Amino acid sequence: MEKLKEFKEHLKEIAKLDFARWVLYWDQRIYMPPKAQEARAEVYGKLSRMHHEMLVSLKTGEFVEHFNRSEVLKSLNERDRALIHVVTKLYRRRVAIPADLYERFQTTCSKAESGWEKAREKSNFDLFRPYLEEIVDLVRQFADLYGYEENPYDAWLEEFEPGMTTKELKEIIKPLQKNLVPYLKRLKEGSRPNDDFLKGEFSVEKQKELSLRALRAIGYDFDAGRLNTTVHPFQITMGPSDVRVTTRFDPNDLRSSLFLTLHEGGHALYDQGFDSSLYWTPLADGASEGIHESQSRLWENLIGRSLSFWKFFYSQLVEVFPAFKAVPIEDFYRAVNIVEPSLIRVEADEVTYNLHIMLRFELEEALLNGRIEAKQLPELWRDAMDRYLGVIPQNDAQGVLQDVHWSSGYFGYFPSYMLGNLYAAQIFATAKKEIVGLQDKIAAGDLATLREWLREKIHKHGKTYEPKELMERVTGEKLKSDYFIDYITEKYNSIYRI
Amino acid sequence: MEKLKEFKEHLKEIAKLDFARWVLYWDQRIYMPPKAQEARAEVYGKLSRMHHEMLVSLKTGEFVEHFNRSEVLKSLNERDRALIHVVTKLYRRRVAIPADLYERFQTTCSKAESGWEKAREKSNFDLFRPYLEEIVDLVRQFADLYGYEENPYDAWLEEFEPGMTTKELKEIIKPLQKNLVPYLKRLKEGSRPNDDFLKGEFSVEKQKELSLRALRAIGYDFDAGRLNTTVHPFQITMGPSDVRVTTRFDPNDLRSSLFLTLHEGGHALYDQGFDSSLYWTPLADGASEGIHESQSRLWENLIGRSLSFWKFFYSQLVEVFPAFKAVPIEDFYRAVNIVEPSLIRVEADEVTYNLHIMLRFELEEALLNGRIEAKQLPELWRDAMDRYLGVIPQNDAQGVLQDVHWSSGYFGYFPSYMLGNLYAAQIFATAKKEIVGLQDKIAAGDLATLREWLREKIHKHGKTYEPKELMERVTGEKLKSDYFIDYITEKYNSIYRI
Repeated sequence: MEKLKEFKEHLKEIAKLDFARWVLYWDQRIYMPPKAQEARAEVYGKLSRMHHEMLVSLKTGEFVEHFNRSEVLKSLNERDRALIHVVTKLYRRRVAIPADLYERFQTTCSKAESGWEKAREKSNFDLFRPYLEEIVDLVRQFADLYGYEENPYDAWLEEFEPGMTTKELKEIIKPLQKNLVPYLKRLKEGSRPNDDFLKGEFSVEKQKELSLRALRAIGYDFDAGRLNTTVHPFQITMGPSDVRVTTRFDPNDLRSSLFLTLHEGGHALYDQGFDSSLYWTPLADGASEGIHESQSRLWENLIGRSLSFWKFFYSQLVEVFPAFKAVPIEDFYRAVNIVEPSLIRVEADEVTYNLHIMLRFELEEALLNGRIEAKQLPELWRDAMDRYLGVIPQNDAQGVLQDVHWSSGYFGYFPSYMLGNLYAAQIFATAKKEIVGLQDKIAAGDLATLREWLREKIHKHGKTYEPKELMERVTGEKLKSDYFIDYITEKYNSIYRI
Repeated sequence: MEKLKEFKEHLKEIAKLDFARWVLYWDQRIYMPPKAQEARAEVYGKLSRMHHEMLVSLKTGEFVEHFNRSEVLKSLNERDRALIHVVTKLYRRRVAIPADLYERFQTTCSKAESGWEKAREKSNFDLFRPYLEEIVDLVRQFADLYGYEENPYDAWLEEFEPGMTTKELKEIIKPLQKNLVPYLKRLKEGSRPNDDFLKGEFSVEKQKELSLRALRAIGYDFDAGRLNTTVHPFQITMGPSDVRVTTRFDPNDLRSSLFLTLHEGGHALYDQGFDSSLYWTPLADGASEGIHESQSRLWENLIGRSLSFWKFFYSQLVEVFPAFKAVPIEDFYRAVNIVEPSLIRVEADEVTYNLHIMLRFELEEALLNGRIEAKQLPELWRDAMDRYLGVIPQNDAQGVLQDVHWSSGYFGYFPSYMLGNLYAAQIFATAKKEIVGLQDKIAAGDLATLREWLREKIHKHGKTYEPKELMERVTGEKLKSDYFIDYITEKYNSIYRI
């Protein structure tokens, strides 16, 4: 037990460096003056390097070896075993990458991000291609070093969605694709909601007030966080009880800030809900990127875009923007749920979002396996857009160059977004079964019951359970696309009156 | 030369930890949510410890030893010799304190600050006394370890004002005291300016606009900094080209924010003016706390509270607050220069400010030398206030408990405030001699000439010269109180029409 205490102290020292780094990152994204960039990158780089070095140190290695002895492992309680499991995995992955290669990857990605920005500005994929080719090469090398059974893509999926394989992912996607593509065509024949009343000017000050009210409504703890404005909104955990969110304001569209805020707020509720016994360890984290995304999508869409939510929250909207008094709640609800096949993923609605992801998954998996080459991407992108969504980008900026992920070396990340949607639907279906009168509670403004249920079932455990085990524990079955398909069909049949 | 490069790289690594720490500190003071406090203190503590450990490491020691060999030292250029001098001093002071004692001091001060806060809230010195007694004991131990020739107080003065001694300080104070105390009485017989037009409501938004204009006017570089709001304003340098300022707004007094902003802006101009070759070394710092304060006081008072400045800046005030159109500039100028003996140092005007400092210096020097005891402080404070300012605090909160410094273990810091005023007057007198038509330039809105002069003479050198050498280089003589006394007498004779 003495050794376990020492181990946790060691992890705490590592966590401190990590948190320090996040404070710098947050400041960098929000407040840092432009001329400070270069020097700050060096300071941030130092903290990252120190963090990495402590993580892959001999000391960590000795602890990992010790606690993985079966007689030692058996003597631990469930949570501590989970801790050993998570740290062991992380340590072995990180230590598998030689320092030189790791640094080359960092440098390449850093250059590629700038290259991507310029290429996107000029809407010219060829400017980005050489960077991408180098990254794909490195990503393959990493996959070999991480190890995998069937598909090098598995090695990267593991990074973001522990336990998930390419094969399983394809199984999950199949029914989704089979249902969503024709459903999207059906919706076109339905009755498109009117959203004229959402056009106009909406003061940023008032939108901010509305965002704050939305965060208060879902139970975000402002004493352990704050809301800021950024170009690209994000949620960040800078320490135990320091879980911040950002949003952005479009003076011509109040939906944008409101749902972005609810999305990031959903992420934040997860981190604010970790059991304090997990603090300072790698268990104080989401079970996976997909599970984390499920919490943001749940609050953004399954709650935030539901009629029940607006039955209660509409009066708050009217308090901030009195003009909505003249708009029936039902009309407003329909208007924030308009489905529109579009070119840009981050602007996609609930129905089309997953199609954007399938396309990316297909391409990056084929790329990693060498079945396609980088230079084919723009054309393959256009083809897939036509097949899935029936719209075709006229240039690379609106097509293959729209996302930063590949330039950052984030292969295998995109599926998390889709998984988040599916997890959310399945988890919410369970919540509806287990919480009597849930929709009525929501309509009456009681979001606390749902939040506490999520906290109890999901948030407080952090990374203790891998996604599969967590889903079994929470919903009693493994992940299925059915819940999402049912949710979408039922909701949009009603909205589109089909 | 290879060795020198290595040394500078080592210093850069130390500087990175320092800057990271300052980012955390800034966030802590401005944005950090309350519940994050405890964990953040641990993260901050880790960075501080790592910084300290690198500074007193064997590696630093070896460099210090190497570069102090006379044949090596002789081979260096002037700036590098200054660097060795500064690092050697810093290293020897830090290494003189055993790690245990250093930690005890940190912990004691941290507890004492909370103790002081509570004591001040209840306005009860006895609640703070035990902490202060412990701190005084530690401060004496530190003085012995730092070493001194005549007075243990010298060992602490050296921390903030290199090269200054208690004896010299007393010599500087003597004429100041002799002149200011009777002059204050004389002013009472003069004609007190009217400030009725400064009473009223001043929107915080507009005050902020005015603060931004003031910073732009003095040439603060917003691309290498930013302005924030805090309860206790400060200036902070978080990295090369990241020099931020904060201010506070009183809706009933526009003077408060304006002059606080100019004060912190003055500090910031210093740090924004360091030569970039000094970055990442301990030379990228003010020559001393006193010299640093001279730059803030110069912009706050000698410029900001001068008639020339208002001749140019008044139109900007009127643009933000049109009501002032009806007030003659001269009346406004006189109103922002009202002299009023008061109980609180931070609210003191130019004439009385130094008297507050003399009192603190007297007490802390006597305390450190054991000529008085902590328990006598409240009474001695009241006596001195009566002698110097003719006002007597009715309670401890407005008297001996008003400043945080002693609870933070900052003995020997107060004189910096006074020295700042004196340095500023002497430097400005030189500027007037060297820059033809300086007052006319200022009145015409040309603050750049003065700023560039200060940059050339003072800012760009950072900590290269100790205060005495710097003053000789800039003004051609050593520090004298005369310039300040002359400045005050001339200015206030005119304002008070005596």
